[in-house]
Amino acid sequence: TLAAPAIAQQNPKVTWRLTSSFPKSLDTIYGGAEDIARHVSEATDGNFTIQPFAAGEIVPGLQALDAVSAGTVEMAHTCSYYFVGKDPTFAIGSAIPFGLNARLSNAWFYQGNGNKLLNEFYATHNVYSIPSGNTGAQMGGWFRKEINTVDDFKGVKMRIAGIAGRVMEKLGAVPQQIAGGDIYPALEKGTIDAAEWIGPYDDQKLGFHKVAKYYYYPAFWEGGLIIHSFMNLDKWNELPKTYQAALTDACAFANTNMMAKYDMKNPAAIKQLVAEGAILRPFSQEILEACFNAAQEVYAEISGSNEWFKKIYEDQVAFKREGYLWMQLSEYTYDTFMMIQQRNGKL
Amino acid sequence: TLAAPAIAQQNPKVTWRLTSSFPKSLDTIYGGAEDIARHVSEATDGNFTIQPFAAGEIVPGLQALDAVSAGTVEMAHTCSYYFVGKDPTFAIGSAIPFGLNARLSNAWFYQGNGNKLLNEFYATHNVYSIPSGNTGAQMGGWFRKEINTVDDFKGVKMRIAGIAGRVMEKLGAVPQQIAGGDIYPALEKGTIDAAEWIGPYDDQKLGFHKVAKYYYYPAFWEGGLIIHSFMNLDKWNELPKTYQAALTDACAFANTNMMAKYDMKNPAAIKQLVAEGAILRPFSQEILEACFNAAQEVYAEISGSNEWFKKIYEDQVAFKREGYLWMQLSEYTYDTFMMIQQRNGKL
Repeated sequence: TLAAPAIAQQNPKVTWRLTSSFPKSLDTIYGGAEDIARHVSEATDGNFTIQPFAAGEIVPGLQALDAVSAGTVEMAHTCSYYFVGKDPTFAIGSAIPFGLNARLSNAWFYQGNGNKLLNEFYATHNVYSIPSGNTGAQMGGWFRKEINTVDDFKGVKMRIAGIAGRVMEKLGAVPQQIAGGDIYPALEKGTIDAAEWIGPYDDQKLGFHKVAKYYYYPAFWEGGLIIHSFMNLDKWNELPKTYQAALTDACAFANTNMMAKYDMKNPAAIKQLVAEGAILRPFSQEILEACFNAAQEVYAEISGSNEWFKKIYEDQVAFKREGYLWMQLSEYTYDTFMMIQQRNGKL
Repeated sequence: TLAAPAIAQQNPKVTWRLTSSFPKSLDTIYGGAEDIARHVSEATDGNFTIQPFAAGEIVPGLQALDAVSAGTVEMAHTCSYYFVGKDPTFAIGSAIPFGLNARLSNAWFYQGNGNKLLNEFYATHNVYSIPSGNTGAQMGGWFRKEINTVDDFKGVKMRIAGIAGRVMEKLGAVPQQIAGGDIYPALEKGTIDAAEWIGPYDDQKLGFHKVAKYYYYPAFWEGGLIIHSFMNLDKWNELPKTYQAALTDACAFANTNMMAKYDMKNPAAIKQLVAEGAILRPFSQEILEACFNAAQEVYAEISGSNEWFKKIYEDQVAFKREGYLWMQLSEYTYDTFMMIQQRNGKL
């Protein structure tokens, strides 16, 4: 008959596997992959199914990119900066020290050159990417002692990775790479002095406040961490256009929904952490400036030897200047006033 | 044969008309409707088509809700607060004085009770809604004279509508309802003394800075204006689930993409406006506090006689307290530092 092929063309059965770089216990971030899978299935009447797997179920979290590049799985939900070991340019995809906040990231990715330039770079690794989640500005992490001056960083063994680790190193800290599940015992035993993870809701689950009570903010290295969908480039190109469209929009939903989830869950968590003994401390202006200057050195070093990084970083910086010029008018003045009212108990 | 009905069930042809409340010249906001239509078409292989019409092509912009309620058109892309004349509860859907910023709006709509409660209310008008765009915190508008104290509002004839108009009235201003296209001549002739519109990119097109040079910020009445899709409830319920899913995700894309477009276009516009003579002025803390207090009076008045408003407003306020508690930690400290660097020319 003619009918069967016609149906098959319209809605072919496509089954993908997605490897997440996160455990299911991180319902915020892992939940993004579930959002994408559910929305794609709903928009295609169940014909395009994406099955999410937690880190380790198919490959370890940090091998997500390799698995997608090689076509072992069709898709990953991960952080681009996990792969800085291959090329520091990967960091720009998720977050770099003193980069864009969540909102400006969306502007750069959706309307600026962010997505376009990064996909040119990712294509060299056989991957196509779509932003699919954001944590907002993260907390600066848990410290066993106070950090009052730049000198206080000297010798501090801190769980922090990638470009941020290189910045910390310039200030005298000793960056350590430790998997999420191993942070608590390392902090408890004193093997490390400090650790950064995500923010109140996620951090609370790991109980850091019981062994390192000073909770610093902000994570100057994660002003708005993007979580990405990485698709094998050939598998992406083979998808029917309608499925590409459904997946693109499902990622847009997941992007906003993850940020919304954090903003809904973090307030209660931060209050509970403080009630249980966490002591909130902002990094001082002096410390942030020293870190900013150290970061500029790192960027100059990388840009000197990496054309991809230089090109994409400079495009982001150009937009960052414009974006922060604009956001300091209405947006910042409005938020400042609302925060004053909040502090005064008037909201 | 059996085949034809099977195909028809999978991807029935559905053609909708969408009335926008905006002119095509507002490419930012009107563009949101075009985004939705394009994405829905792409995700359904052209089988679900939504044709957008500018304000006035089918019905005038302010009759969009009636047209959707009655089923004259299946869908509108509009601002809920245009319909406060029917019920002030409509204002909560878009923006109310000292309400949520864009990011917290997403949290309340996607993860809190916002969308759920408002859709219960909208159902009483035979409408289903999905957030589909945001302008961010708007500018406070164009004034022919400086507003240095609360007393300076006395007698000021200002183009401002809805609940914000009621707040302004309590401070002695005289709110005026004037359509967008009529604002410039009214300001030029001195029929009005001030006018609020949107923000730099949209305002620039209307040339207000040539006739009223003081550009105040923020619009305390629009900390993050949501633009909505309104669907006729029966038409929405008749849609195949796959089309509901495609439309939901297309709206999510449009929501983020509109905010991105504003953040990409406003920086150049604000610089050009200043270069052409606009003078930027923040409303003082004293003025914002007086407006805040006046707004609380208005909310008490409305809540006293409107159960829907009271219920939904109180839910939003409860989340607002939490949201602004959380955002003043990492997010605000990070942005503050970045803005200081921007001002010092270091970004």
